[in-house]
This record gives sequence, structure tokens and C-alpha cells, in this order.
Amino acid sequence: MRTLSVDLGDRSYPIYIGASLVCNADIYRRHIPSRQVMVVSNETVAPLYGDAVDRALAGFQVRHVVLPDGEAYKTLEILNRIFDALLTERFDRRCTLLALGGGVIGDMTGFAAACYQRGVGFVQVPTTLLAQVDSSVGGKTGVNHPLGKNMIGAFHQPLCVIADTDTLATLPDRELSAGIAEVIKYGLIDDPGFFDWLESNMNRLLGRDPEALAYAIERSCDDKAAVVAADERETGRRALLNFGHTFGHAIETGVGYGQWLHGEAVGAGMCMAADLSRRLGWLTEAEHRRIVALLERARLPTAPPPGIGPDRFLELMAVDKKVQDGRLRLVLLNGIGESVVTDGFDPALLRATLQAAS
Amino acid sequence: MRTLSVDLGDRSYPIYIGASLVCNADIYRRHIPSRQVMVVSNETVAPLYGDAVDRALAGFQVRHVVLPDGEAYKTLEILNRIFDALLTERFDRRCTLLALGGGVIGDMTGFAAACYQRGVGFVQVPTTLLAQVDSSVGGKTGVNHPLGKNMIGAFHQPLCVIADTDTLATLPDRELSAGIAEVIKYGLIDDPGFFDWLESNMNRLLGRDPEALAYAIERSCDDKAAVVAADERETGRRALLNFGHTFGHAIETGVGYGQWLHGEAVGAGMCMAADLSRRLGWLTEAEHRRIVALLERARLPTAPPPGIGPDRFLELMAVDKKVQDGRLRLVLLNGIGESVVTDGFDPALLRATLQAAS
Repeated sequence: MRTLSVDLGDRSYPIYIGASLVCNADIYRRHIPSRQVMVVSNETVAPLYGDAVDRALAGFQVRHVVLPDGEAYKTLEILNRIFDALLTERFDRRCTLLALGGGVIGDMTGFAAACYQRGVGFVQVPTTLLAQVDSSVGGKTGVNHPLGKNMIGAFHQPLCVIADTDTLATLPDRELSAGIAEVIKYGLIDDPGFFDWLESNMNRLLGRDPEALAYAIERSCDDKAAVVAADERETGRRALLNFGHTFGHAIETGVGYGQWLHGEAVGAGMCMAADLSRRLGWLTEAEHRRIVALLERARLPTAPPPGIGPDRFLELMAVDKKVQDGRLRLVLLNGIGESVVTDGFDPALLRATLQAAS
Repeated sequence: MRTLSVDLGDRSYPIYIGASLVCNADIYRRHIPSRQVMVVSNETVAPLYGDAVDRALAGFQVRHVVLPDGEAYKTLEILNRIFDALLTERFDRRCTLLALGGGVIGDMTGFAAACYQRGVGFVQVPTTLLAQVDSSVGGKTGVNHPLGKNMIGAFHQPLCVIADTDTLATLPDRELSAGIAEVIKYGLIDDPGFFDWLESNMNRLLGRDPEALAYAIERSCDDKAAVVAADERETGRRALLNFGHTFGHAIETGVGYGQWLHGEAVGAGMCMAADLSRRLGWLTEAEHRRIVALLERARLPTAPPPGIGPDRFLELMAVDKKVQDGRLRLVLLNGIGESVVTDGFDPALLRATLQAAS
């Protein structure tokens, strides 16, 4: 088992990475301060790991909420089912929520924990590669709104994160690739050595080599934890983590939630950001080709779906949180492993990128 | 104008108390860092003060959301109307929300600000006595759930609070009394001199003497600010502020939200807590009589409505946040101006209090 620490003062927490962790009773006992534990999962994951978690939580007062599976259900309305369960079971303000599932379950459970009785603890057990390397690290929680993704939420740090590599064995291929998109992102924004490693080891990741997966998860979490520790509330450096996401969110909203996986949209979004960086002369043609090639090898889309169009794209991007007082800010590349947050780009070149992708 | 400071480190904020503050452009300009301002109000208050606020906010990009009036609308569903407005108007993460109304508007606007894009700023302009002395101080925000009051929420401190005594001129008598219930509470929990002052000045408050009201607001806010500053997250001393509230919340839920005003339920709840304290021998008969007499003079109920019954009362109180791992904790009195949080009381005496009140 590998252990990383996310250093946030009195809200610091560990990330455990390894095999057979879902059923590791010691970790639960070490980090859950209460008797009452509400396990929040979905219809896909609960049948796979619910029983193992129950056995490891012997001695706790455990209850379950099982939500429908999918980004389309990441809404205030479905969130309310968690509150219904907590109140029906008379869970008090010292209870703990346990998120067992992918990013949607993690985001919703974390947000429910942030809001229930104005804040209770939660443990994250991410069961997808995407959640393990992205949404389980950094304390971002929330739900979507019909007019924009993740528009309603809170910063709320977990008590600990348990990334069990065994759970990736049951992950569909498409979801594995979507997780790899975020892994590649860490290489692109500030870890060029990791990007090189990914070029050499992509086949091992796609073949679900446990060693390679564990290494990629650890390095991704380490990269992200370093950024988050430096900027918990996302005022500066943390914005780099949004590389590919402003384009990606526009794609997700444009095609309708649930059509594309988040990681797939981010994959196409990173290609668009790389394309704009190339047009600005900040990225060489060769670097741009390496990026597109690696994403293709990861079986990720490298362009948005047809039909959104530049005007609609700009409209959707304008709703994104990266807008400040009307000016669109994007994360762009000065090279592989070197990124920058900026609104200092020619809008005509952005339009050219959108046009080329339409 | 009187100015108090709530001292919470980098989340400290001022409370301004006085006449003609709703239309004081200087205060808004000093505390609102953004161009975009969403004024959240209700159908009763918006027609009274909406225009004055608009004029004082000249130069800002101001939009309005007007919610239905009443505790019955303090729900996740109605909260969503604020998010709808913010997203429809493309308000970004640096926008500011302005709560113009009573406690319900303040709690909902504060919670919307806590959650919108994971946290934006908000200014509170409480227009009821209750909101001025209670819900505008301390950073508690949230909504109700059918199974319990204030069960979903966040701690989120305002940028500033503007308590305009002019707004109390239009307040219905019943709401004035409900506000006085909380004012009396501050005297009872730790300010015996203030309780004495209230015994001498109750007629001036009921006659809406501006000087007396301003003094009572300032002293109440000062008392509350001192408690909140010492214990922002409600782990210890802050629980004293819940005096009368565990009984009161049970009354509000028992009769259905919106039937009794919050302050009315707290008035009856404080009498029940005083009754239990007397039965325990912690409060003298004479002190108990003084408390009931002052609440009667304030035209407040001194007993719950008939028909709830002891069993239902206990059930409703068990849902309250003051329960920890199954043990009910109450705020009780050791004297006027001397309160304690405890689970060390004979349950039979609690039942006797509930029986006597049924």
C-alpha cells in the first residue's frame, strides 16, 4: 500500500493506494470517528463492493443509499435522497458519509456531507480511475445545474481517500480511457517526465497492469496534491488543473450530460487547448502532434462531436467558472509540462480553433 | 450609526446599526468587491425597500430574485430559483448576493452564496428584528427539510450586515414580538443586566421607540458576536445560543412550518426549558415567574400549542442537531443570565415538563 498526504493544515488527509483496500477494516476504524456511517453508492457499484464494505465496517451502525448511476443524476433533486436517508435514519451531526463509486458519487456525497447539519465528515472510496486521480483529491464537491456543470457545491475535505486498484478490474474500457485523460493532463500541465513515462507505458495502462496503474495513480495524486496544497481555494495555481476543462465542460453541456464521459470531453478539450496554443505560437507543431497521438493511443476523442459550432461553443464557455467580470480565461500550454492561466490571447485564434473543430 | 465587529480572523465582518442604512450607498461600495449584485428578497419586502436598494446600488450590475414569503418556502426547491437566476444572468464567481428580508431570506441567500460556484460573497440587510438580532449574526445559513429544520446548510460569513432600524416601522406586531423573544434569550443565557434592562424597557420596545430598539439590537448582536467569535463552528459555548430552540424546533415541526413564527416557538421553548430547570431545582420559583412574566409582557406564547403530546415531542426533539450519539443535550438555566449545555438531567423530569405543557 502506498500512502500520500494532502497537506492542508488541520484539514490534511491521507490517500491510500493499493490492492484489497475496500475491505481493509483498519483504515475505516482509524479514520471514522463516529458510530453512524451512511454508505452512498450507485446501482452499478453497490452490488459489486457493497457487501465487502459492510463486512469491513462491522461494529459501525451502517446504512445505505443507492442512487441511480450517471452524470445525468448529479442534481440537487437526487442529492436530496441522501438527506432523506440521513434524516429518516436519524443520523446526527457526528455521523460519517462514505462515498463508494466514481466521481459523481464522490462529488454528491462530499457535497451532502458539507451541507448535512452544516457539515459532517466523509470518506471517499473512489472506484474509477478518473475519481481516483481527480475528483477524490482536492475537496471539490457539488452537483450540476441544467445551465452548467458543478455550479452548485462546496469545498469540503474528506477524512481520507481509499483508492483500491482492484476496483479497476471491473471498469469498462471507455471509463478506463476517460481516467487516463486526466492522468495525461497532469503530465501536460507541470510534469513533463510523467508525460514521457506515459508515452512509454500507455499499453501497460490499457492492459490494466496493476503496477503501472498504481504508479500512475500515485504520481497523478502527488501532482494534484502538490497543486491543491499550494492553493486550496482555487485563486491561483490550482486553476491549472482546469486544463482542457473549459472546452470540455462546453462539450458536455453542448451534447447533453451523460452522452460523453467527463474524461472524454476533457480529452477533446485538451486537444482544443493544445490547438489554440499552437496557433498562438506557444507550442510547436511537433509537441502538438505528440499530445494528439498520446490521446489517440489512449482511445480518447481528439475533437468535439460535430454540430456544436463556434458561436454555441463561446456561449457555453462563457458560463464556465473561469470567466471573471466578463473576460474568458483559459489554461494554455507553453510546452509539454508547462501551462499558464491567461486571458491574453487573440479571440480570433480561439474562434479559429473552434471553427477547425466544428 | 453604531458599528460592531464580529471578530473571526480573515472572515471578520462589521454590523452597522441605525436609521436610513438601506439606502446608504457608501456602505455598499465599501463592502461589495464585484460589479454583479443579485438582490434576493421576497414578495413582501421587495416592494417596500427594493427601489431604495436599487438607487443606492447605482453603478453596479443589479438583478433581482423575488421569492415567496414564509418559512414554508425555505426549501431546496425554492433555493434553486436563486441558482436559476444567477446562471440565467451569467453571474460569475466574483459576484455578490444581497439578502434583503427576514431570517428566511438571509438563511437562503447565505446558503446560495455558500454553494454558488463553491462560494461567493454576500451582504445581509435584515429587515425584521429577529433577523437583525439572530440570523444575520454568526454565519449560519441553510434550508429546512420536511423531516427537520435547518438540516441542510453551511457556515458562511457575510461581507457585512446592515441593520436598518427604519425597516422595523413596517413590521407586524407578531413579528416584532417574535424578535423580542430572541432578545430576551440573550439576557437569559449570559447577560443578567440586559434581562433587567428588558424588564424596565419592554413597553418602549413594544412602542417601537427607535432608541430602545437600537440599544436592544446592539446589545443582542454584541452578546451573540462574543459567543460566536469564541466558537465559530458550534462545538462548545455557541450551543448556549440554542436556549429554547430544541423545544422550539419541535413545536415548529409539530404544528407544521409556517403556523408559528420561529420566535414564538422559541418563546414557548424557553418557558419549557425554564420549567425543566425549575423542576431540577436549578432555577428558583421566583426566577421562573420573572421569565414567564417578561415573555407574557412581550406578547409571546409561554406554552406550546395543545395536542403535540410528550411522545411526539421527544420524537421531534430526537431529530434536533443537539443529539450526539443518541443522547439528548439541552440548554438549561442555573439562574437568570446563567446557562449550561447538558445531558445530565433526569428524563422523568423532562417528561413531566412535556406532560405539563401538553
